[in-house]
Amino acid sequence: MSATAQSSPDAGRDRDRIVNLSDGVFAIAITLLVLDIRVPDIPENLVAGKLPEELLSLWPRYLGYFLSFVSISVFWMIHHSIFRPIRTYDRNLLYLNFLFLMVVAFVPFPTALLGEYGNHQLPVAVYAATLAVGRLFLTAIYWYSTRNDRLLAESRAPATVRFFLVRGVTIPAIFLLSIGVSFFSVGAAIWTWFIMIAIDAIVVRRRLAY
Amino acid sequence: MSATAQSSPDAGRDRDRIVNLSDGVFAIAITLLVLDIRVPDIPENLVAGKLPEELLSLWPRYLGYFLSFVSISVFWMIHHSIFRPIRTYDRNLLYLNFLFLMVVAFVPFPTALLGEYGNHQLPVAVYAATLAVGRLFLTAIYWYSTRNDRLLAESRAPATVRFFLVRGVTIPAIFLLSIGVSFFSVGAAIWTWFIMIAIDAIVVRRRLAY
Amino acid sequence: MSATAQSSPDAGRDRDRIVNLSDGVFAIAITLLVLDIRVPDIPENLVAGKLPEELLSLWPRYLGYFLSFVSISVFWMIHHSIFRPIRTYDRNLLYLNFLFLMVVAFVPFPTALLGEYGNHQLPVAVYAATLAVGRLFLTAIYWYSTRNDRLLAESRAPATVRFFLVRGVTIPAIFLLSIGVSFFSVGAAIWTWFIMIAIDAIVVRRRLAY
Amino acid sequence: MSATAQSSPDAGRDRDRIVNLSDGVFAIAITLLVLDIRVPDIPENLVAGKLPEELLSLWPRYLGYFLSFVSISVFWMIHHSIFRPIRTYDRNLLYLNFLFLMVVAFVPFPTALLGEYGNHQLPVAVYAATLAVGRLFLTAIYWYSTRNDRLLAESRAPATVRFFLVRGVTIPAIFLLSIGVSFFSVGAAIWTWFIMIAIDAIVVRRRLAY
Repeated sequence: MSATAQSSPDAGRDRDRIVNLSDGVFAIAITLLVLDIRVPDIPENLVAGKLPEELLSLWPRYLGYFLSFVSISVFWMIHHSIFRPIRTYDRNLLYLNFLFLMVVAFVPFPTALLGEYGNHQLPVAVYAATLAVGRLFLTAIYWYSTRNDRLLAESRAPATVRFFLVRGVTIPAIFLLSIGVSFFSVGAAIWTWFIMIAIDAIVVRRRLAY
Repeated sequence: MSATAQSSPDAGRDRDRIVNLSDGVFAIAITLLVLDIRVPDIPENLVAGKLPEELLSLWPRYLGYFLSFVSISVFWMIHHSIFRPIRTYDRNLLYLNFLFLMVVAFVPFPTALLGEYGNHQLPVAVYAATLAVGRLFLTAIYWYSTRNDRLLAESRAPATVRFFLVRGVTIPAIFLLSIGVSFFSVGAAIWTWFIMIAIDAIVVRRRLAY
Repeated sequence: MSATAQSSPDAGRDRDRIVNLSDGVFAIAITLLVLDIRVPDIPENLVAGKLPEELLSLWPRYLGYFLSFVSISVFWMIHHSIFRPIRTYDRNLLYLNFLFLMVVAFVPFPTALLGEYGNHQLPVAVYAATLAVGRLFLTAIYWYSTRNDRLLAESRAPATVRFFLVRGVTIPAIFLLSIGVSFFSVGAAIWTWFIMIAIDAIVVRRRLAY
Repeated sequence: MSATAQSSPDAGRDRDRIVNLSDGVFAIAITLLVLDIRVPDIPENLVAGKLPEELLSLWPRYLGYFLSFVSISVFWMIHHSIFRPIRTYDRNLLYLNFLFLMVVAFVPFPTALLGEYGNHQLPVAVYAATLAVGRLFLTAIYWYSTRNDRLLAESRAPATVRFFLVRGVTIPAIFLLSIGVSFFSVGAAIWTWFIMIAIDAIVVRRRLAY
């Protein structure tokens, strides 16, 4: 019933294939984001006059590009640090990883929604929910891999595991709270994300040597 | 006339290149699926009122995204377990793999068709046929690689080979049968796929340690 | 003035990075081809009646997808067999490889042109010219790498080199000749390509063990 | 406070994952460029007559494709030579690399702008600024990695480091200067880039064995 991990000498190479597929999805998801910034359509005789303001009016798209690029990059860095000590895998880990990748590959859609209707509440909520769910899947992968020492090259310090699990639940919670904030102020909700990302980066840097 | 497999010490690395190319196609195919979920076009003064229902009305697209993501993930997992023991390759294996990748890269089209006209019979049939053909090519790769022990690091147990060949023929057969079902009920045909994927996952888990 | 090849123990890994980048371009180019097969736009009440013929009328797109998938696959197989013995590289090899990749990444455009206006002479000529140029760059890479034994793990048999150079010049020549054919018959020109690909596959199989 | 580099035996493999993700972004960015060359829309009865001139009138798109392909290729070659001696990494290096990739993935947008409005000043300025910023991030990565010998397998000759830093600041400076040129002549600004790329290639070749 329960899945047994691979223990053949090739397991490391197989782990690499999971990581490679994930990196492919990461790379494509962040690169597709730019397709949503479309060149404005202006009649030739008005280009000189109207292009500057048209390009400026695309700022919600630039912001969405920046925000999603940063968010997916953070996902990648966490995914990277979770998979580094993993040496073998089982079917459950594969399933969790695919669920996570399904969210990563989906990010361009809420990003486009935010770029088009970023001054409305619903797109902000959809965006926050997407990132919260993605982060929760990452936390689930971390929880699963650390609970199963057999998947790891060496077991991790319980204090470190606890720190990351707390962090991995707090951040999605803040994302979900920002949905509440969005009912009062859409701008404040978006600012919440940036502040949270910055604080998280500082906390992680203090906590970790790496 | 007959192709001879590579036996140089580099063969393993060359196998890796085939796997890498395949993983690239897998990663892009699943990430392109999101391009088919388009942001609805709503006049600014109606956004607050109409966006919720417009987003809900996209549900066939979300379903298509989910279904194709799962299907391609299952393809990847099978491809992964087929190629794991393969150490060398020959031209026939390359050809079969390219035919299979041609189907994987094609999946976004029937998915888009299903998302647009999912309540009609023809798109359901096209979708089922595409997955059936993809699965048959995978089975052909498996059959070819196990028939040629020289391609493998170690030969596989005949019972395991038989189990996988039966599974690899049964599943496309069910996909093709679901085309028949689709003439009576489009919804029932789609449900067939989900039930089959779930049953298959349970059977494989029972059968395999991995 | 002249470039000296890398001879550090890491050179093999660096070669891998060139190959990885190339494989990324190959994988994306073949997967983007499907974006050109667009779901037909039909009013809901006419779908049942008109969808079958609309899907059939997309046949030039399916043909273009198939043809370009096969062409890029053949490019990949040749690229693969050229780079297998290469152990180090120099700047010229990088330049030639980028020129070649520029053509590979360009293939979706002539494919779309052929899918849209495949019954006209110009798209057929553009398509044939693109593949001819791509093949010539591959031949240039082969010529350059075999002329510089220092790039290879072991030097190749002169007869093999000669065979591949002749093949690598003949095939682009036939592509260019098919442009001439296209002035008389567009269909005949397209058939020329298929026949040539088939004959080439047979000749290579006879000639090579691999 | 300060980040400590990884020194585990796996660090090399982890470095590879950063490089792989970067290569994915490079590969996708250069391959997406072709999506901006769109097949002209011509009524069937006019195709024979109008297609040739329509294809010729796309020349700013071909030029943009070529220019951006060359620019991203040059970025890749520099990125490649910067990361070759890097054996370990720290969080700052990851951040710098993601900022750089954010610019690489953005390149298709200014390219599309240039292809659409290449005879105007603003798109030329946006394009030059994008490449200048990308190049500056590359220089920052180089500066950071060479300043921290612990990241490198072996420390580099100070003269080489100085040469690359000067080059890595001069080129963005010329890109920024070309924005000034663009106020007088858009064509001259674009020519500046090509001349600079050519001179740079010659200088590098003279300076380096590789």
